[in-house]
Amino acid sequence: MTVTARETGPHDQASSGRQARPLLLDVDVHPLFLPRDILPRLPEPWRTRYANENSGRGGARAIHDYPRWRNGGFRIDAAVPGGPPGSDIDVLRAQLLDEYGTDIAILIPLTFALEGPADYKAALCRAINDWLAQEWLNRDPRLRGSLNVPFDSPDLAVAEIERFAGDPRFVQVMVRGDTQSEWGDKKYWPIYRAAEAADFVAMCHVGGEPGNHYRGSGAPSYYLEQHVWLHMPVERLAMSMICEGVFDAFPRLQVALVEACLTWSGPLQWAMDAAYAVAGNDAPQLSRLPSEYFREHFWLSTQPIEEPDNPRHLVKSIEFAQLTDRVMFSSDYPHWDFDSPVKALPAAMPAAMRGKIMGENAARLYARRLNRG
Amino acid sequence: MTVTARETGPHDQASSGRQARPLLLDVDVHPLFLPRDILPRLPEPWRTRYANENSGRGGARAIHDYPRWRNGGFRIDAAVPGGPPGSDIDVLRAQLLDEYGTDIAILIPLTFALEGPADYKAALCRAINDWLAQEWLNRDPRLRGSLNVPFDSPDLAVAEIERFAGDPRFVQVMVRGDTQSEWGDKKYWPIYRAAEAADFVAMCHVGGEPGNHYRGSGAPSYYLEQHVWLHMPVERLAMSMICEGVFDAFPRLQVALVEACLTWSGPLQWAMDAAYAVAGNDAPQLSRLPSEYFREHFWLSTQPIEEPDNPRHLVKSIEFAQLTDRVMFSSDYPHWDFDSPVKALPAAMPAAMRGKIMGENAARLYARRLNRG
Repeated sequence: MTVTARETGPHDQASSGRQARPLLLDVDVHPLFLPRDILPRLPEPWRTRYANENSGRGGARAIHDYPRWRNGGFRIDAAVPGGPPGSDIDVLRAQLLDEYGTDIAILIPLTFALEGPADYKAALCRAINDWLAQEWLNRDPRLRGSLNVPFDSPDLAVAEIERFAGDPRFVQVMVRGDTQSEWGDKKYWPIYRAAEAADFVAMCHVGGEPGNHYRGSGAPSYYLEQHVWLHMPVERLAMSMICEGVFDAFPRLQVALVEACLTWSGPLQWAMDAAYAVAGNDAPQLSRLPSEYFREHFWLSTQPIEEPDNPRHLVKSIEFAQLTDRVMFSSDYPHWDFDSPVKALPAAMPAAMRGKIMGENAARLYARRLNRG
Repeated sequence: MTVTARETGPHDQASSGRQARPLLLDVDVHPLFLPRDILPRLPEPWRTRYANENSGRGGARAIHDYPRWRNGGFRIDAAVPGGPPGSDIDVLRAQLLDEYGTDIAILIPLTFALEGPADYKAALCRAINDWLAQEWLNRDPRLRGSLNVPFDSPDLAVAEIERFAGDPRFVQVMVRGDTQSEWGDKKYWPIYRAAEAADFVAMCHVGGEPGNHYRGSGAPSYYLEQHVWLHMPVERLAMSMICEGVFDAFPRLQVALVEACLTWSGPLQWAMDAAYAVAGNDAPQLSRLPSEYFREHFWLSTQPIEEPDNPRHLVKSIEFAQLTDRVMFSSDYPHWDFDSPVKALPAAMPAAMRGKIMGENAARLYARRLNRG
């Protein structure tokens, strides 16, 4: 079975007229939960702990928090009565799915801070995953989900992955940006093994983790800096997973790097290969060039997309990186720096590349999970 | 006065036959000091402290330390009796300056760990600067020096800069990679002010700082990873200095980013401009596009250089980044991944770009200090 616009079901209002149009998959859409969504899905003693941690927030914020971003980080027009932007499926349908004829939108519920005892973190992840399945994925066939797991408790993470392994509503496992060890560390391999076995993509969307976790010294003063920085932890993730041999152990595992820019990916490959040429014997477990692992296992998303003066330089950079088949459109709805599908890519981009990025690549990456339904 | 091959003095053995050849400036050469070099230049109580900290090391290591790199990080043929590679000026002359006809080599004495009370750190920097001046810069007119300063004690750093402000042997101030705050923080502005006033370049060469300082979570398992990572802290440095308004305050200040690759510089500019387009009002002090600050204030060096399959992609990436006039050759002597001037750049590079990178750009950047002598 192949994912096509025709198969996206009754919510696709204009399907009869659009069967010939290109696929549109959006790989970065954020639903937001409130304490009221999580509390009834938490057992004690975690329900009390979570209630205490979220008291005084008026129900308007949950684990995630964008304290100093414009409008809390969101599109003003995405606000809904009684909840933050991204908390209402009907608004999301109107502003995103129906507005652009999105065939598939992959939901990423971010939990920026995830702290406390392992069982508490695992319970929170379970509650969030249940909420996502029941309140979102069950209510629109165009939606697919990403699993939150307690990444630094690999046994509990694996249990949560296995709980949803057979569930076609979920397509990927979220790799946290604030792991306690580097991402390729063998302690995380059970997670990668479980993801691979279930055809889950491993997806990393860094951003907003508190404190110093993804930066090193200091904290950024401006959103401008912080947003550009997001490519750095995922570059480290890619190097760590490649150098530690994750992909030799799990050759089918695929990794999506969402909301982390694109054009660093050529320079990273070239720098890794140059270092490998002189220092490859330091990592003798590698069986191929680092760039080959990168191009065989990593995928990138378009929001935020770099904007060189000459938009052809963006096109050339994607070609130089040999990632034309691995870049995927993302809108980052409902954030204020949302990219519309009709404006995200420059006019200078060739039609073939555009078609791949807007839908074909994501359909191929997620095919094994999308076609389980 | 303009720096030319002819003016490099009597050590230039073949100068009469080479007046027409292109300039060769090498902006990353490492002299190494031993405890025996530093101890006599330290006053008490710091002499005793330094002796205690370095006891048991057999005189073979000093503040810097490459514990697990190949051959301690050095070219095997650069070893000298009684000292590590890089500790003997005659070997450096033979293997580098005379071998390649280097016109100017800029010495960067790395002090990877610099810890303890502020006065101790300042005393160590003074001792290292004095050693560099007396044992190296005084002994060959082709050599120029970089100042170590206690960066997180700005008043002491400024005092050290002013001690050498009028000294033509020194051309730049070293910006540490392990600053306690982000590099653009106003606490460091007195350092930038003093550097600008003395026409010193601000130069950052990250690498080897202990612990977690320049990475964020975890530590790399392999040299391959660590070496590729070096561009990340300098990207953060560039963003921080730009966004905090350092270059509006100090418009003549120039920053050299040494040993941190090249081709990330286009993507960084594009990502910053894209973020500025949507979030510029978060940093209202900026008077121009971030990329304009970058191209007007930053310089890059060639070692390590990225090696795409198609070397023309390297050339194109430098052109896309609009940095043809700001990339400078560096050898990284005496490290084992040393780049020879005759092999560092791909044959596909146009002659005009090659000439700029091998010498013209560095001669322009360092002109104000080079021409003081």
